[in-house]
Amino acid sequence: MAKRNLYLKVIPAEEALALYFDVIKERVCPKTEVIPVVSALGRTTVSAVYAKYNSPLYNSAAMDGIAVTAAKTAEACDFKPLVLKKDDYCVVDTGDPIKEPFDAVIMAEDLIETQDGEIKITEPAASWQHVRPVGEDIVAHELILTSNHKIRPMDIGVLLSAGITEIEVYKRLEVAVFATGTEIIEPDAQIVEGSIIESNSRMFEGLLTEQGANAHRLGILKDDYALIRDNVKQACEKYDFVIVNAGSSAGTEDFTVHVLRELGEVFVHGVAIKPGKPVILAMVGNTPVVGLPGYPVSAFIAYRNFVRPLVDYLQNSAEEDLEKVQAFLSKRLVSSLKHKEYVRVKVGKVDNKIIATPLARGAGAAMSLVRADGFCIIEQNQEGLEAGDKVTVELCRSIREIENTVVSIGSHDLILDIIADMMPNKYKNMYLSSSHVGSLAGLMALKRGEAHIAPIHLLDEETGTYNIPMIKKMFTDICRPMALIKGVKRVQGIIVPKGNPKQIQGIEDIVGLRFVNRQFGAGTRVLFDFLLKQKGISPKDIQGYDKEAATHMAVAALVQSGAVDCGMGIESAARAMGLDFIPVGHEEYDFALEKSNLELPHVKAFIEVLKDSDFKQKAGEMGGYEFSQSGEIVFI
Amino acid sequence: MAKRNLYLKVIPAEEALALYFDVIKERVCPKTEVIPVVSALGRTTVSAVYAKYNSPLYNSAAMDGIAVTAAKTAEACDFKPLVLKKDDYCVVDTGDPIKEPFDAVIMAEDLIETQDGEIKITEPAASWQHVRPVGEDIVAHELILTSNHKIRPMDIGVLLSAGITEIEVYKRLEVAVFATGTEIIEPDAQIVEGSIIESNSRMFEGLLTEQGANAHRLGILKDDYALIRDNVKQACEKYDFVIVNAGSSAGTEDFTVHVLRELGEVFVHGVAIKPGKPVILAMVGNTPVVGLPGYPVSAFIAYRNFVRPLVDYLQNSAEEDLEKVQAFLSKRLVSSLKHKEYVRVKVGKVDNKIIATPLARGAGAAMSLVRADGFCIIEQNQEGLEAGDKVTVELCRSIREIENTVVSIGSHDLILDIIADMMPNKYKNMYLSSSHVGSLAGLMALKRGEAHIAPIHLLDEETGTYNIPMIKKMFTDICRPMALIKGVKRVQGIIVPKGNPKQIQGIEDIVGLRFVNRQFGAGTRVLFDFLLKQKGISPKDIQGYDKEAATHMAVAALVQSGAVDCGMGIESAARAMGLDFIPVGHEEYDFALEKSNLELPHVKAFIEVLKDSDFKQKAGEMGGYEFSQSGEIVFI
Repeated sequence: MAKRNLYLKVIPAEEALALYFDVIKERVCPKTEVIPVVSALGRTTVSAVYAKYNSPLYNSAAMDGIAVTAAKTAEACDFKPLVLKKDDYCVVDTGDPIKEPFDAVIMAEDLIETQDGEIKITEPAASWQHVRPVGEDIVAHELILTSNHKIRPMDIGVLLSAGITEIEVYKRLEVAVFATGTEIIEPDAQIVEGSIIESNSRMFEGLLTEQGANAHRLGILKDDYALIRDNVKQACEKYDFVIVNAGSSAGTEDFTVHVLRELGEVFVHGVAIKPGKPVILAMVGNTPVVGLPGYPVSAFIAYRNFVRPLVDYLQNSAEEDLEKVQAFLSKRLVSSLKHKEYVRVKVGKVDNKIIATPLARGAGAAMSLVRADGFCIIEQNQEGLEAGDKVTVELCRSIREIENTVVSIGSHDLILDIIADMMPNKYKNMYLSSSHVGSLAGLMALKRGEAHIAPIHLLDEETGTYNIPMIKKMFTDICRPMALIKGVKRVQGIIVPKGNPKQIQGIEDIVGLRFVNRQFGAGTRVLFDFLLKQKGISPKDIQGYDKEAATHMAVAALVQSGAVDCGMGIESAARAMGLDFIPVGHEEYDFALEKSNLELPHVKAFIEVLKDSDFKQKAGEMGGYEFSQSGEIVFI
Repeated sequence: MAKRNLYLKVIPAEEALALYFDVIKERVCPKTEVIPVVSALGRTTVSAVYAKYNSPLYNSAAMDGIAVTAAKTAEACDFKPLVLKKDDYCVVDTGDPIKEPFDAVIMAEDLIETQDGEIKITEPAASWQHVRPVGEDIVAHELILTSNHKIRPMDIGVLLSAGITEIEVYKRLEVAVFATGTEIIEPDAQIVEGSIIESNSRMFEGLLTEQGANAHRLGILKDDYALIRDNVKQACEKYDFVIVNAGSSAGTEDFTVHVLRELGEVFVHGVAIKPGKPVILAMVGNTPVVGLPGYPVSAFIAYRNFVRPLVDYLQNSAEEDLEKVQAFLSKRLVSSLKHKEYVRVKVGKVDNKIIATPLARGAGAAMSLVRADGFCIIEQNQEGLEAGDKVTVELCRSIREIENTVVSIGSHDLILDIIADMMPNKYKNMYLSSSHVGSLAGLMALKRGEAHIAPIHLLDEETGTYNIPMIKKMFTDICRPMALIKGVKRVQGIIVPKGNPKQIQGIEDIVGLRFVNRQFGAGTRVLFDFLLKQKGISPKDIQGYDKEAATHMAVAALVQSGAVDCGMGIESAARAMGLDFIPVGHEEYDFALEKSNLELPHVKAFIEVLKDSDFKQKAGEMGGYEFSQSGEIVFI
């Protein structure tokens, strides 16, 4: 076997950063440049800026009217208006200079014009009235901006008024970004088996841009030691900072650390952070080089912990505060003392409590970064957190949005996507956030007060009816009255490849084939178990009964890939993936909730969307739905 | 006299905007465009985006190790390791595809390599272990982003992984900006009498850029009806939105409203908002044209109220919330029922209360926009606000900065600028904010709990000593102990033009000359009054005794401009403006505060800066200072 790297030593995240910062601060200073003031928006001043000119530049009229000599108007009064001759005044608009012999302005409104062009006034003008003295706004040599000030639009205006057209600011950091990996392809390239679409470097570009740095993506390098070495070496000469992604781990083709050892010094290889462990912190000459892990979530967390503070330091930009919120954790989270862990969470406000619900923890789940409302951090010295613990969450979404979001936890259906898309469009600032854990787990979350609504489709075997019996059973010990928002009737069935090559007609035909099941507590699994029992088939006879997928779409994807021969799911999922579908029955997919939550404005918006004809049309196009009761309320 | 416009009708701000919005919504829709995903950072989606590909694209290794067929490993155990032949496995790195016949991955750590290249395992592999199934992260046809979603770096990553390379987003608004006015010059042009440096259009550029629009500054137009008409007409054909600044008022050369009446329709001319009244809201064809006032503060407030929401609507960008804070008003604010008023305020946290202190209210005071921490809004139906009222302040500075700011209210000295600049440099996130109201008013503010420190220089005529007697006198009824941070000794004197043309030798020579005084309560005025008394001169004999300037620098600027012959002030101000200076005496400029505030970290930082040798050097270069006691504490 090819040789693998071993991490030299995995060290705590804070220690790794501090160690590297010490090196960088010793060797690298933030660079500065002089630029035109008109291009300086968002840049940071290097030193204090003092006014060059006064503003106004001269004594000037503060009103439209006439300039006069105050002393010559002393005798004007109501019963004996003073007539001003042509030489006694001068017509001025606001901003016009007031020069000797004039020293006051009379407003246009206070003038009486005679037919022969003379002007009369009925009261004397006070010296300096309606005159803006020179330097009233800005006095030359006055401090305008302190050093380390981030330049705003109004600052640009004042700098120019004060005669300053160029300004010294910190340079934007020029950052080179490499993607490496023979299997990595550009998004528009031909996909072959083994291809992985390159996307991390584009995420880094975005993160760097948000920090005000200039990102230079230098393309994808194959896993070739000399190629990586030569490119990194060149980049270190040309740019201020280099990011290499990935090859930072300990696989057979992870060359990054070897390249960096040859070119310069590696200070850290591996940090105690999860996800994000395979981080390399190195210097080549006086250029910092950071190796980041390949899994998207690891890459994001590692960027946030190591690249972000370094970039802020190197271009002297103030670290933007991450918005934080105190929340109650809905689930126990176990973590190891071996690392600091970032857990992606959904955040919702239910019953006036902010609840954080952990999402999938896999490092590869990039979609969970998109779905996350924030991160809950488990420090390295903590073995985990208990359900109900108060935790700090670093938010990726604004708290206002979170407060206007319907939190849905339960069974998955594609109509949830349609509703999530329609809600903020039809009702400003109203959102739907849904986690897919299956019907039963949804009802449990509802009971614990972690969700506003639980989408469910649970068949009661005794009565043959859906949902209401199960809610009654589960909520007997709760004194709060419950309700059900009727959703859709939908067709359940067997999802099979196009053309149904195994000729499946019903549940009995699944025996002997490769099947993928849904997780325990999912309504689809309850239905499947019910059907097996009806047909007298034992779960042991189903190959893959223990192989679980979390959503209808995940089942469909596995069928499409050929990894399994069939799975249970809804018609819309089969259609979306271009697969065939053998119906086995109808079921009712509804939303359980506490009756009092029907009054929440965002829950009301949710119900209105269910009743909307646009919704019914869009969902109808996916196939397999019936909407006769959508949006109706049943009190339980 | 030339003809002046009269405002047709001044209407409330909300009504004006609503009326104009109705017109715009009827005639103009936000435009969209399809752009590459890699350029879509910060843009807003037009419709929901669904995944095109699965991610991973295939079943793939979740770990570095070997791929095996799980069923063939069933017999492996600790005491009888299973030897894998070359065909029984395949070496895989994380992300490599797992293909038939393989269906599981064994981690590198769990392998025993024999000398002859064989591999042994000691426990069976479960089917699908360490395999990421196809679509585990993203399932094709799954909702990735809803419509109206602002694209973040992680979204770009996921879009690319899901096979999406182009995306429909709302177009950035293309906005033309005209500056008008014959007296208006570019910042680098030769200044002649009557010149006003153009700066508003650059402020608008910055504000538009911050909103994500593309600003096109089309230069300065002279006050020429046909020229303005032709340029505005052309711009309306080429751009999505046009701003004309200014000429929106009712002066003799304010052509904007006439031009817009000829070219299109004027819906609003004049709104009940202060500052910001001369606003024009018009349409030329289907292009919105807004005329904004010329005074910088008016321009800013009018932009915020009228342009900002329109730009957000026209490019469908979510309105960013302005950060707001609840504060106690330190001064009574009278306002008229005729308009809604924006009052610039300084905001500070003193004794755990957030205090808002109004700044100068003039529309021309652009520098007050730079100095302001926020805006306190007095609604049109309010006649004003009382001192102590709880008010909402729209912030222009982060609340974290405000909480770490030493609030100084009192007498002005140029060393305050130096300290304000040095504090955040030497002590991260520690700031000084100072308002200049004179010594006496500073002590009053301190007494009311609106400031941490009050810079003062108040001579006690009886004892001839500075500051301490006055603090004792003013704070007898306060039980909290007081302290004084010693500042600098400085030279006071008469500021005269270079060469001292009027041959002033002392106070007695001022009689008969044009003088500018300081405001009541300023230490310099107290000293001046003391000197007049000593010499037996009556204030009535001083021409300009009632003409007041607010700071030493303002006095110096008036002397320099020739508007007055002399004024009282400090040596550093005279030197900074290149003027001559006739010393009349030394005085002590110190900082009064409550003793308990000495413990605040930002006050500690302030004291450390006073003691710093860098500070003494910089202040020393300005001239007229002595530092023997700087930073010492006197308990009172």
